[in-house]
Amino acid sequence: MPRPRATISIPSLGAVDRAAGQVGRQIAQALRAAIAKGELKAGELLPSTRALATSLRVARGTVVEAFEQLQAEGYLESRVGAGTRVAATLVDPPRPVRARIERDLKAPPIQLPPRARRLAEVAAAFTPMPEMPFAIAVPGGSVAPDANWRRLGNRVRASRAAAPASYGDPRGVMELRHAIADYVRTSRAVHCEAEQVVITAGTQQGLYLAGRVLLSRGDHVWAEDPAYPGMTAVLDDLDLVTTRVPVDAQGIDVDAGLAARPKARAAFVTPSHQYPLGMPMSMARRNALLAWAQRQDAWIVEDDYDSELRYAGHPFPSLQGLDPSRVIYLGTLSKVLFPSLRLGYVVAPAPLVDAFAGARALLDRHSPTGDQHVLAAYMREGLFEAHIRRIRGVYAARRATLIAALDHHMPRNVTLQPSDQGMHLLLWLPQGADDVHLAKAALADGIVVRPISPMYRVAPRPGLMLGFGGFAPEELEAAAVRLRRVMDRDGSQRRTQPRRAS
Amino acid sequence: MPRPRATISIPSLGAVDRAAGQVGRQIAQALRAAIAKGELKAGELLPSTRALATSLRVARGTVVEAFEQLQAEGYLESRVGAGTRVAATLVDPPRPVRARIERDLKAPPIQLPPRARRLAEVAAAFTPMPEMPFAIAVPGGSVAPDANWRRLGNRVRASRAAAPASYGDPRGVMELRHAIADYVRTSRAVHCEAEQVVITAGTQQGLYLAGRVLLSRGDHVWAEDPAYPGMTAVLDDLDLVTTRVPVDAQGIDVDAGLAARPKARAAFVTPSHQYPLGMPMSMARRNALLAWAQRQDAWIVEDDYDSELRYAGHPFPSLQGLDPSRVIYLGTLSKVLFPSLRLGYVVAPAPLVDAFAGARALLDRHSPTGDQHVLAAYMREGLFEAHIRRIRGVYAARRATLIAALDHHMPRNVTLQPSDQGMHLLLWLPQGADDVHLAKAALADGIVVRPISPMYRVAPRPGLMLGFGGFAPEELEAAAVRLRRVMDRDGSQRRTQPRRAS
Repeated sequence: MPRPRATISIPSLGAVDRAAGQVGRQIAQALRAAIAKGELKAGELLPSTRALATSLRVARGTVVEAFEQLQAEGYLESRVGAGTRVAATLVDPPRPVRARIERDLKAPPIQLPPRARRLAEVAAAFTPMPEMPFAIAVPGGSVAPDANWRRLGNRVRASRAAAPASYGDPRGVMELRHAIADYVRTSRAVHCEAEQVVITAGTQQGLYLAGRVLLSRGDHVWAEDPAYPGMTAVLDDLDLVTTRVPVDAQGIDVDAGLAARPKARAAFVTPSHQYPLGMPMSMARRNALLAWAQRQDAWIVEDDYDSELRYAGHPFPSLQGLDPSRVIYLGTLSKVLFPSLRLGYVVAPAPLVDAFAGARALLDRHSPTGDQHVLAAYMREGLFEAHIRRIRGVYAARRATLIAALDHHMPRNVTLQPSDQGMHLLLWLPQGADDVHLAKAALADGIVVRPISPMYRVAPRPGLMLGFGGFAPEELEAAAVRLRRVMDRDGSQRRTQPRRAS
Repeated sequence: MPRPRATISIPSLGAVDRAAGQVGRQIAQALRAAIAKGELKAGELLPSTRALATSLRVARGTVVEAFEQLQAEGYLESRVGAGTRVAATLVDPPRPVRARIERDLKAPPIQLPPRARRLAEVAAAFTPMPEMPFAIAVPGGSVAPDANWRRLGNRVRASRAAAPASYGDPRGVMELRHAIADYVRTSRAVHCEAEQVVITAGTQQGLYLAGRVLLSRGDHVWAEDPAYPGMTAVLDDLDLVTTRVPVDAQGIDVDAGLAARPKARAAFVTPSHQYPLGMPMSMARRNALLAWAQRQDAWIVEDDYDSELRYAGHPFPSLQGLDPSRVIYLGTLSKVLFPSLRLGYVVAPAPLVDAFAGARALLDRHSPTGDQHVLAAYMREGLFEAHIRRIRGVYAARRATLIAALDHHMPRNVTLQPSDQGMHLLLWLPQGADDVHLAKAALADGIVVRPISPMYRVAPRPGLMLGFGGFAPEELEAAAVRLRRVMDRDGSQRRTQPRRAS
């Protein structure tokens, strides 16, 4: 029978710092480490609590407490008259914990799961851009919600309904669902009742939910070409087979979709303001798309991301209003309020609402309820519509400033594509220009532009998206000048004559 | 050539209400409706703007504005000298919009997508319970964050960092990731740097992300039996093949898992407080599980949902601390703060962090940033640890009250399972009792209990989960009495002698 160690030779115990407090806990942790490192082996007899206490110059009770804890955890075993041993049932002790986490941070991947590399690439694509011109959806200065938003928020959060609460309905807070239904009925001709509204964390989640609920692995879907990369990434991630349908001046070319893949199960479209090109889908195309969906029993996912920001004429009525039984309507508060709020909504045909709720519950249960109550109050008190009216004016002025600045400063081989809606403009570069390289060069000079060509699958055209919302007119003007300088320096821009104002 | 209609016979135009304002918009909408309903047909000539204005008693400019809008939308076509016609390109007009959405709400599902029915069942399972005893995770009264949380929130949201902002990092706000890393290092012996922390919307999302990143369709995984239904639902939804591994007094029975499915790719476990049974995983089992994972190159997902609430001894150190390269650690603020906050975290091996970020970006980009800043400040200022200390005392007292009440009021054939941790207790019912039926009967009497048997796949035992956190001692006492009455009335409980206090 082994004898207890007469002297304490457990290196890990050297780490106990009596001045730091919680000594019992420290001793327990040191003994665990000693066992993990093999300084103490299974079945080995420990020093008596008295000897250990004397050696560590702590009260014996402190050591007893640590031993009891480790017994409860199964590290140690104790029998009356037989002392305390390291448990014999510590089977297959794991490899020792790496001492320095820094090594772990730099260590090569052990064996990355198959999906991990693709998902890491997605992360790179979603890295937020700095908030410099011409970043899109930056709620800076006068386009941010004013003090009303914050004051109302403080008031609402002090109320019973919005106070810290338990789990909520995956569909969202009922009061907000009512407010959203009222809003989309009047402003977007969406046909719905509050029960059809499911609150989301924004359009991205709306797209993911729609993909989960409507489609199964291997299903064929239509997506516009070009399209929002965050949408096509969802379709790829859900293992759907995407047919990219070209877009012309009237929006998605339904005939081209019919020729390529008539039997798709769904179409993901941006009818009120094609992303990224900016034109609305014509009425003829809307009808053709709906007729196709009716014939094929297919779904249409209508991403209506910035229809509030229209500067001329009225917005087209939504596709959803033309056939509420076949269209999933997605809205977001990221554009007219601010992206960091992470609130949006789905309007779904009534028979699908429970499935959307279930998909949401599986993903993350529901959106935080505090801000849902704040937003409901903001809409109910008319502050939301006042905010939209206010920022529409601000955006219109900034848009005019940017158009004038680009007319003045851009080279002649660059074409501005007009759009009466949204928070960005589109600059076409000459064929053969490298918009990705130009965007990188611009970023190095403190200018954020988004290249268009990567958003195409077929026949990419080089171009840049320029956001104008979050920046004062003088910032936009100065950035246009800097962008011109980057273009002149960059290989992709040869001709440098100033373009005549059109 | 058809003549313009001499008289106005477009029924939809009757709906124009001049008193309601926005008359041009109303006229446009009425004409769209007339076209959709077939009152106006493709190619048909419209009355002149002058005739229509006279007929409707509005300014001619108002009608011109409506016509121009409809031309822009492609509904109408106009040529000089030839009047205005309904566009000939309105191909395949869709079926008329159903006039009454109520019919749509009640209509039978057109053709539900294959996944929709299963997801709707998930929604039913996630429907929140009323906040009555013995609901779990109800931040009522003295366990809710106190006024400090709200005041700090108001202050932080007024600061630049937490104000309305653009898109953020899918990994979360860096300041919060630092605060979480510091917290789990000290309190849970988790080995990590802030860079390994990814902020989530709670444990549910952490589970979904882990499934997405680590595993592919058809992969085999271990889950405990019984287990949290929100976890097993994620594994099913991701089309993984789950082996349910039985749990005994030491936690997951690793040998049983080895016998049933040695080559699984991952194990999803609740080592510090098995859900729902409540025991911690013994050290021997921890080592056996880690040794299996190392041999198989498998992942362990450690759901550490309520380790802060420990009433005796110290909590076991985390599995993650024993092998940080192989364990995904999931934490949540739902239990110690409140569920409606929807914040939690993943600690992942460094090489996997980008993949988690990418998966998060695809799902919903990131958590709202305002509350992330508030939480970071709450942790930095020491209010979080003070809150935990405070509620731990409140919970301990309520737990003692409930144990005494159950000892006093429960029948003898019901057994209380002790646990030193968490916010619920477990009552075993006699074999053959119908816990699902009993829970329904209790709910009808205003008592919320969660039945255990549905959480098993193999060899279900009937029992009830009783949360004690959100209710005052007198509420718990009264509810125990009411629960006894329900049991006596309910078929599943025959013997009614009072159980002796143990």
